[in-house]
Amino acid sequence: MSSNTFGKDFRLTTFGESHGDFIGGILEGLPAGMSIDLDFIRSELNRRKPHSAYSTQRTEDDEVRFISGMENLKTLGTPLAFIIPNNNARKSDYDNLKDIFRPSHGDYTCFRKYGINASSGGGRASARETTTRVVGGALAKLFLRPVNITVKSEIESICDFDYITQRKEAEEALKKAKESSDSLGGVIKCTIQNVPAGLGEPVFDKLSAVLAHAMMSIPSARSFEIGDGKESCKRFGSQDIDHWNEDFTTKTNHCGGIQAGISNGMDIIMHVGFKPISSIGLIRGITREGKIKETENKGRHDTCAVLRCGVITEAMAALTIADFIKRSQQEK
Amino acid sequence: MSSNTFGKDFRLTTFGESHGDFIGGILEGLPAGMSIDLDFIRSELNRRKPHSAYSTQRTEDDEVRFISGMENLKTLGTPLAFIIPNNNARKSDYDNLKDIFRPSHGDYTCFRKYGINASSGGGRASARETTTRVVGGALAKLFLRPVNITVKSEIESICDFDYITQRKEAEEALKKAKESSDSLGGVIKCTIQNVPAGLGEPVFDKLSAVLAHAMMSIPSARSFEIGDGKESCKRFGSQDIDHWNEDFTTKTNHCGGIQAGISNGMDIIMHVGFKPISSIGLIRGITREGKIKETENKGRHDTCAVLRCGVITEAMAALTIADFIKRSQQEK
Amino acid sequence: MSSNTFGKDFRLTTFGESHGDFIGGILEGLPAGMSIDLDFIRSELNRRKPHSAYSTQRTEDDEVRFISGMENLKTLGTPLAFIIPNNNARKSDYDNLKDIFRPSHGDYTCFRKYGINASSGGGRASARETTTRVVGGALAKLFLRPVNITVKSEIESICDFDYITQRKEAEEALKKAKESSDSLGGVIKCTIQNVPAGLGEPVFDKLSAVLAHAMMSIPSARSFEIGDGKESCKRFGSQDIDHWNEDFTTKTNHCGGIQAGISNGMDIIMHVGFKPISSIGLIRGITREGKIKETENKGRHDTCAVLRCGVITEAMAALTIADFIKRSQQEK
Amino acid sequence: MSSNTFGKDFRLTTFGESHGDFIGGILEGLPAGMSIDLDFIRSELNRRKPHSAYSTQRTEDDEVRFISGMENLKTLGTPLAFIIPNNNARKSDYDNLKDIFRPSHGDYTCFRKYGINASSGGGRASARETTTRVVGGALAKLFLRPVNITVKSEIESICDFDYITQRKEAEEALKKAKESSDSLGGVIKCTIQNVPAGLGEPVFDKLSAVLAHAMMSIPSARSFEIGDGKESCKRFGSQDIDHWNEDFTTKTNHCGGIQAGISNGMDIIMHVGFKPISSIGLIRGITREGKIKETENKGRHDTCAVLRCGVITEAMAALTIADFIKRSQQEK
Repeated sequence: MSSNTFGKDFRLTTFGESHGDFIGGILEGLPAGMSIDLDFIRSELNRRKPHSAYSTQRTEDDEVRFISGMENLKTLGTPLAFIIPNNNARKSDYDNLKDIFRPSHGDYTCFRKYGINASSGGGRASARETTTRVVGGALAKLFLRPVNITVKSEIESICDFDYITQRKEAEEALKKAKESSDSLGGVIKCTIQNVPAGLGEPVFDKLSAVLAHAMMSIPSARSFEIGDGKESCKRFGSQDIDHWNEDFTTKTNHCGGIQAGISNGMDIIMHVGFKPISSIGLIRGITREGKIKETENKGRHDTCAVLRCGVITEAMAALTIADFIKRSQQEK
Repeated sequence: MSSNTFGKDFRLTTFGESHGDFIGGILEGLPAGMSIDLDFIRSELNRRKPHSAYSTQRTEDDEVRFISGMENLKTLGTPLAFIIPNNNARKSDYDNLKDIFRPSHGDYTCFRKYGINASSGGGRASARETTTRVVGGALAKLFLRPVNITVKSEIESICDFDYITQRKEAEEALKKAKESSDSLGGVIKCTIQNVPAGLGEPVFDKLSAVLAHAMMSIPSARSFEIGDGKESCKRFGSQDIDHWNEDFTTKTNHCGGIQAGISNGMDIIMHVGFKPISSIGLIRGITREGKIKETENKGRHDTCAVLRCGVITEAMAALTIADFIKRSQQEK
Repeated sequence: MSSNTFGKDFRLTTFGESHGDFIGGILEGLPAGMSIDLDFIRSELNRRKPHSAYSTQRTEDDEVRFISGMENLKTLGTPLAFIIPNNNARKSDYDNLKDIFRPSHGDYTCFRKYGINASSGGGRASARETTTRVVGGALAKLFLRPVNITVKSEIESICDFDYITQRKEAEEALKKAKESSDSLGGVIKCTIQNVPAGLGEPVFDKLSAVLAHAMMSIPSARSFEIGDGKESCKRFGSQDIDHWNEDFTTKTNHCGGIQAGISNGMDIIMHVGFKPISSIGLIRGITREGKIKETENKGRHDTCAVLRCGVITEAMAALTIADFIKRSQQEK
Repeated sequence: MSSNTFGKDFRLTTFGESHGDFIGGILEGLPAGMSIDLDFIRSELNRRKPHSAYSTQRTEDDEVRFISGMENLKTLGTPLAFIIPNNNARKSDYDNLKDIFRPSHGDYTCFRKYGINASSGGGRASARETTTRVVGGALAKLFLRPVNITVKSEIESICDFDYITQRKEAEEALKKAKESSDSLGGVIKCTIQNVPAGLGEPVFDKLSAVLAHAMMSIPSARSFEIGDGKESCKRFGSQDIDHWNEDFTTKTNHCGGIQAGISNGMDIIMHVGFKPISSIGLIRGITREGKIKETENKGRHDTCAVLRCGVITEAMAALTIADFIKRSQQEK
């Protein structure tokens, strides 16, 4: 069965196909009496929307409506359900894709799994699905607000360029990709601050393991690193050890805030790599009969996923931390 | 609550502290009537044992005994329980660590979580725990054998050296680390072959996401990549697309056998990075009162985790695939 | 965390407060390509509506709308979400109950659990919640239709009267209860036919155990019996054994179709007892300060739950069997 | 997959076939630092052993050994594993049953489910399995001890006789059953005291629903009633309401301590009915080929399950309450 729920004690369950009338979800685990800051939720959704020239021109309204679980913007302790209407489903854009499996897309694998062709938007493998994660993540951030835990993200690299020091080169690569109807990959850095020491459930649900699960479930994710990640793996132990300060903080944070799968109170730092999206201008697909067929891709798509991905990584991080906070409450 | 179970429909639940009398586990999900190849299980355990000069000199017997779930080496369809006695617990080696939290270890985080000091071996944060994963993984491999799915691993790099092309340099680094009671990080490549197309449960339990979870739950794991991983994130889309052959295989395998979270029938390829283990010769720990204290580390430990880690990554890969095969059977 | 999901591999998750704008749910586990018979679903909802003179006069529209998971009335294999607007929330009817905990209601226990007063309809402890079970159950029945499994229910007794042989006495008791703004308890018999042998997951998820769970989760349920139930417990073994026919059916069915927690192919027969609902004319409530306070109950309520409960027991039975069918598919 | 785990946050997972070398289990959810009272656990196991003339003469040693999760009789917060060797497996007693399916046993249903013949003790459908429940239950009782929650049970009826007022008649029925190698059914009353108000997780995991699940998972259980049970279903609402005292206790306890699926602070009272066990002197079985075959039953069995069942109902009750206490801790 497809997996539509993330979290054990703070749970987001989502539904909705890319081009269906609604997408939405149910968030369970919020305590009763919590204030829901709708403006914040909308501002988070807004961050996921296409803003730059390099993002899809498909307008996304993302007007979220909460239909249960709150009264007068206060939670009731019951499941909080929300729906987002899809005002902009232009299925016709995808008509010429109906008969082919696009390369490096989910068309073929979904067909092999479910036996139906969802290439024209009838499936869930779509960026649109991530909207529900952003709503869930915004609710998780509201849940974390009173304990001062914050999540932020930044673009670390685009193409082969460090986004801080080589931003000009990155912009040029984007321009070049856009002009040639091509796309670009990149890496997001996501940081969680003020996490108390003690979160994580070894041996299998180490905090780092569940964060990896969360991040790698985002469409197009290809790599996950905690702390210094792959750089650590090139070091001697003596170079990678995070030495103690006398207040139990550490002088360095090579480990990214997690020791033996449990948070140590330092910032949790992750790096999530996203492949270049595969919806480029010219699609060399394959028919069910095994004939290669070249098609022009008229659907509106992003040049670079990482320009909009940050808020999604934050959402998944916030959902994960909220869940572990609830799970840890049993241990008192 | 600590998480001791991996898998949903093919489940391994494990127990046992590093220096307790027994470790062991329960494997659920094997069909009735399956032959258990004990020699194979022992050979897998043997692969996890220290062999090289750079591995811990702590002898590990790892004599596994199955105490339920089979009769005459045939499974009964009931839970298969196994125990492994610990014949070699030299707790005294750890006496001088009792009063400190070692840096970059789980001592402090476990203490913050459970309120007890497990630094002397009373906790589960230990390489010994992985023995039970190897048993579970061997059973998973036996389960996968009739459908011809195989899992293999190789050392990809040690320190900053490619293990194939720079093996001599890697060996020298190992020697140097060993001599200075230091340690080294590295990367394991793990490949799963003959996986049928259609495995994986989007949107949250994408095959890549659960494999990331599985791998990042192994002690010392710092990075996870699927397919070309971080390299993909530096590319243009036109460079990263895996173009079709007419038999639905692809000309390249940048994606590592998974599209949109579902297997596509190509080899599944992962890269798992391990930090250098933090048990080095001189430990600068901290007492509960916040005093830094230097101690000699008399416990026997590995110079480089990746020399023994391959079979553990394979075990987690096999457990994951076995679980998804069972999960997929409901979709028929 | 409140539990809003029933089932493991065929799962219904529900939301919605009694007097909120919407109730609804998500059904996971339907295969792709299944036809959805909307008329059947509506007819099931219709069975739950008040029809007789002894049912609440609160009109319930129950117009269900499916907002994901199907296209042209065919399932897509994705989660099927549905919403039911509440057109008839007369919160004012409950105004005089706001300040008291009614006796034998969930008001006090919900307050002790969630810290909020849901007595005026802000909670989930309400007959209205069961509408979502009926939708889920109707979908489960559609899932079971191709394998010919059917679920039916009948009123077994009302008050102390067998509903078949003493129907006149039962009707008189109902009339008397109605006239005095009182209520009546009763028992529903629920039968599942054509269940294949082999369903059930001992040792803890015996088919009888999960059916008990399902039935006892219905509001007002007080007793669950499988097969001859309490009568069996009065017998000698020689009287209760179901002797074999040569085709592996049994001459009697004292066990109600389940042996050792697994279906044996005979009819599954259950008896579910419902207490008289506690919403009667005169309510002797208690304030938060511990003052007893008599109030007239103006809310519109049923005289006897069992007149409308049958379809709900069927829904829970169908959901349970559908789940076990999916669970059993892994064992092939 | 067979279900071998009970509980969500306080979890017992069990293994072991009736005539295997070991049975055992893993208990997760105990906090670190809790004292384990071994004598108490042994005394609970002792209560499950055959004592009376009407119980099986099969001696059961039940020497439990804890092999992980504790040090010096203090828990470590890690999973607590235990094994119980089977010193008394007389498989030969069952030789003549190998080729038949006994009536009203799990032989046929297990065969239909797993495809193997477990009639001679290779399966889990056996009273012996309940030993692991008693160990888990004893640990749950120790967990509940500091908050003063107690569980007790008593025989309510045997055959058709109230065990308090008609004890002499019950004893005579037992004697008669024993002499004719027959068996008898009965009912156990189980009471949980000092449960705080607020336990239970509606809408699906109502406390009454999960208790029903727990009790109906015990071998031979046929009926479950909460509070006045079936008697309530015969009443008018005005007769069944539990009126308030000014301290929020109630004058009566018809509901058995649970309102709307949540504990109200009064005693939780259940009644669990057990069928007469089907292992009587003369077995009219059926071969796989469909031939009826009469056989003498040489296995040693109880005359009346309820004489030994009390401690098992208590165990399941204690496990359930412990789990809900852990689950409720997240709501703070």
